[in-house]
Amino acid sequence: MNKMRVLGAHGLPADNVVKPTIARFFDPGSVAIVGASSTPGKPGHEVIRNILANDYSGRIYLVNPKGGTILGMPVYSSIGRLPDGVDLAVVVLPADASVQALEDCAAKGIQHVVLSAGGFAEVDEHGTRIQEELAQVIRKTGIRVLGPNTSGHISTPCGLTSSFFPLGRIRRGTVSYIAQTGNFATHTMRHILTSENFGVARVIGLGNKVDVDESDALEYLAGDTETASIVMYLESITNPRRFLEVAKQATRRKPVVLLKSGATEAGKSAADAHTAAMAAEDRLVSGLLHQAGIARISRYTQLTLVGKALSMLSLPKGDRLGFLAPSGAMLVTLADLCARLGLEVPDLEPATLQRLRGMSAPYIRLRNPIDIWAITSVHGVEFGYQEGVETLLKDPNIDAVVAIVMLVGDSCLPLANSLVDTAKNHPDKPLLIGFTGDRVPIEEFRLQVEHAGVPTFMEIEQPFEVLSILVQCQRAMTRCLGANKAAFADLPD
Amino acid sequence: MNKMRVLGAHGLPADNVVKPTIARFFDPGSVAIVGASSTPGKPGHEVIRNILANDYSGRIYLVNPKGGTILGMPVYSSIGRLPDGVDLAVVVLPADASVQALEDCAAKGIQHVVLSAGGFAEVDEHGTRIQEELAQVIRKTGIRVLGPNTSGHISTPCGLTSSFFPLGRIRRGTVSYIAQTGNFATHTMRHILTSENFGVARVIGLGNKVDVDESDALEYLAGDTETASIVMYLESITNPRRFLEVAKQATRRKPVVLLKSGATEAGKSAADAHTAAMAAEDRLVSGLLHQAGIARISRYTQLTLVGKALSMLSLPKGDRLGFLAPSGAMLVTLADLCARLGLEVPDLEPATLQRLRGMSAPYIRLRNPIDIWAITSVHGVEFGYQEGVETLLKDPNIDAVVAIVMLVGDSCLPLANSLVDTAKNHPDKPLLIGFTGDRVPIEEFRLQVEHAGVPTFMEIEQPFEVLSILVQCQRAMTRCLGANKAAFADLPD
Repeated sequence: MNKMRVLGAHGLPADNVVKPTIARFFDPGSVAIVGASSTPGKPGHEVIRNILANDYSGRIYLVNPKGGTILGMPVYSSIGRLPDGVDLAVVVLPADASVQALEDCAAKGIQHVVLSAGGFAEVDEHGTRIQEELAQVIRKTGIRVLGPNTSGHISTPCGLTSSFFPLGRIRRGTVSYIAQTGNFATHTMRHILTSENFGVARVIGLGNKVDVDESDALEYLAGDTETASIVMYLESITNPRRFLEVAKQATRRKPVVLLKSGATEAGKSAADAHTAAMAAEDRLVSGLLHQAGIARISRYTQLTLVGKALSMLSLPKGDRLGFLAPSGAMLVTLADLCARLGLEVPDLEPATLQRLRGMSAPYIRLRNPIDIWAITSVHGVEFGYQEGVETLLKDPNIDAVVAIVMLVGDSCLPLANSLVDTAKNHPDKPLLIGFTGDRVPIEEFRLQVEHAGVPTFMEIEQPFEVLSILVQCQRAMTRCLGANKAAFADLPD
Repeated sequence: MNKMRVLGAHGLPADNVVKPTIARFFDPGSVAIVGASSTPGKPGHEVIRNILANDYSGRIYLVNPKGGTILGMPVYSSIGRLPDGVDLAVVVLPADASVQALEDCAAKGIQHVVLSAGGFAEVDEHGTRIQEELAQVIRKTGIRVLGPNTSGHISTPCGLTSSFFPLGRIRRGTVSYIAQTGNFATHTMRHILTSENFGVARVIGLGNKVDVDESDALEYLAGDTETASIVMYLESITNPRRFLEVAKQATRRKPVVLLKSGATEAGKSAADAHTAAMAAEDRLVSGLLHQAGIARISRYTQLTLVGKALSMLSLPKGDRLGFLAPSGAMLVTLADLCARLGLEVPDLEPATLQRLRGMSAPYIRLRNPIDIWAITSVHGVEFGYQEGVETLLKDPNIDAVVAIVMLVGDSCLPLANSLVDTAKNHPDKPLLIGFTGDRVPIEEFRLQVEHAGVPTFMEIEQPFEVLSILVQCQRAMTRCLGANKAAFADLPD
């Protein structure tokens, strides 16, 4: 075992090695695909197609011992033969070849490497040993490694992804994901691309975290000007103390939402996840997130829905909600939901009530939530919704508005446009839309308003649930800022 | 006020009047539309179009003082001029004309009337007075009235609806709805028709309940051979004692699910609904439903999702769930969800484990929940899902199975068909499917399996939430049956 002997001499932590930050993963001037393949369907081919599909702004180099050309690009026969100055290597080789590849990258001066393959500590003892060898190379050389066992990362501002899963063009946006799962560079990303109307700034698939962990990722995103909000999925927190410090800095500047699932290793121990020990650990996690100013969620689907809302909205100033629908039954049920979610549904200003009553049939006493039917039946659907939403957004007692839009039959794009205009006049107050009714006009309406930055939800409960998480974000950030200020106030002059 | 004088003589309850059951609302040999209109868009026109669109099996009569013809059918100038023996009248007239119309119907021998108009007790004192007059006619004559202020009812076995909301063809199914809201004959029905793949047997929109209430409706559906399960939305329970007795009988035979919203009057008092008094009343309702064997739900959206599941599945025998997905992160998060929902995720039989391990990569220790990736990566997607689902369904420790199907790219109809076949071989164990991935193949897959009776859900959490309600139904029915048996066992010989 030649590798082991070489590494044996360097097995101790080399603390004097200065490690670069991980920023270069996200704006490399050049990327080398190590293990490039000419065979469609193979990871070493699909990663190239993904990069081409996203119009990556830097240079692309391909490496394969066979040489030749792939997709019209020349192939280098080894890492050592690459030109100098390559910023990032994406290594698409089996686990057994990864240690040598990493050493070759380090020898060539490549400081950032994505290791895609699985077959490491997540599977067996042999894999665990290889992963330890990787760790030794990292300690020795200071090279930064994302993975192994990761479906990669995404950086839309420079049109790059290291994912080998067919993604096509990835929409650019302002929300970034840190995920201890490959899904956000595979199936969940495809869901976002085909069923949602928002984009991402960066996605970081942590994989086995042999080097880059959630604290590194969060620290980078906290200072990243392309990232306005951060959504995380974690199964473990490698260094809770460092994570807390980094998170406190992050939440001073942008909202952070996290789903921490109950188990510490994906899949393997799912069924054991709910022992008393896990419950105790879970309370510690909740305490940490509370201190860090992070909002905690528990549904996987909310990773996407909250990501969309954060992409499109500013946080509400408080929890005082106004909402409307043309159905009394929905209003009553949703008022119940608000109580369960801790959202306030306050009385409106007298002036607001007067305005509403001027628009409605005389026998209806309109209030919050508003039964919009009383207005639409007199003045038509478009007027009713538009005036109802506008009136709620203007009321000083209201921090955010939800409209349940019930559509049937013909296209309702004029209504969609008028609600977008109304929302734009009140950028400080989130407007969220829920739907029921006919599928076709809903899909049209949805596309129209989401492209203009108003988030919509296919179930009437979702805008309320998402809004309650935005409120939780706002409170967590305010509390955290206050605590920081108080800590400074206590310092001696 | 001529009407008041006439009614004054009969103002006391006429307990000796024998009231017919409400069954005739659902299979009338003939229906009269009172207030028929030739103007498209008007309620008196749309109700006719709805009935025609559903190929109503009986005779249709139209009534309008103007006479003439509408849609090629002759129009009678008054109720009195109708032929004898009309079974049902749908009265589409303003509130002020309703009392006279009801009296005319009774005089003509029509024993069942739907009153569509609003403008009664739900709006003001004048309306309340009219509604009291209706009640007097009902007491005097024994006529049965659905409404007022209802968007009507639906009975697909005979192709009839009294809804004036454009519905088109309504799919026939086995679930029936009782709703203290018009939505299930308006927007929510359109949602079901355009976004779901199940149908209904009967829908009963209660409206202001001047006569027919939830107990009448539930009693009818309990004995209705077309109805296999019952889903209810209520804001009030008119006669809790009678409701309990009727519900106990219903849940001996079929599952009953109920959403009881917090307030007693739709829309009006939504914001006041969460006082201490309401919370206390709510605990009484929970107690009543517990005794009655009814499963309680709280999300409006579940009225549809649970309705779909009840349409397609038998109830699971217990709460022991097996599930699978090709994503460790989802399995861990969903195992957390199962713990919160009270669903057990038990160990599998040794024989099952052996079979699973024979199919997977050697280093993977498969267990429940199953990381299907270990099988699909060796044997392909179709084999992995099909064998995984089959293996779980066969295990004696498992009562129900959820498969999270992650689709991208091409059509996966062979997989859809193979899962349908597998489900059909195990009709006693529910199979539910959740999705993530690309929209187009998911939509195709969904259509295919739902038409074959396997329910699917667009969010990965939904099959678990719906299944927990089916388990609640099964437990409630068993408990209720047991309590009944115990009560009889205590009787002296």
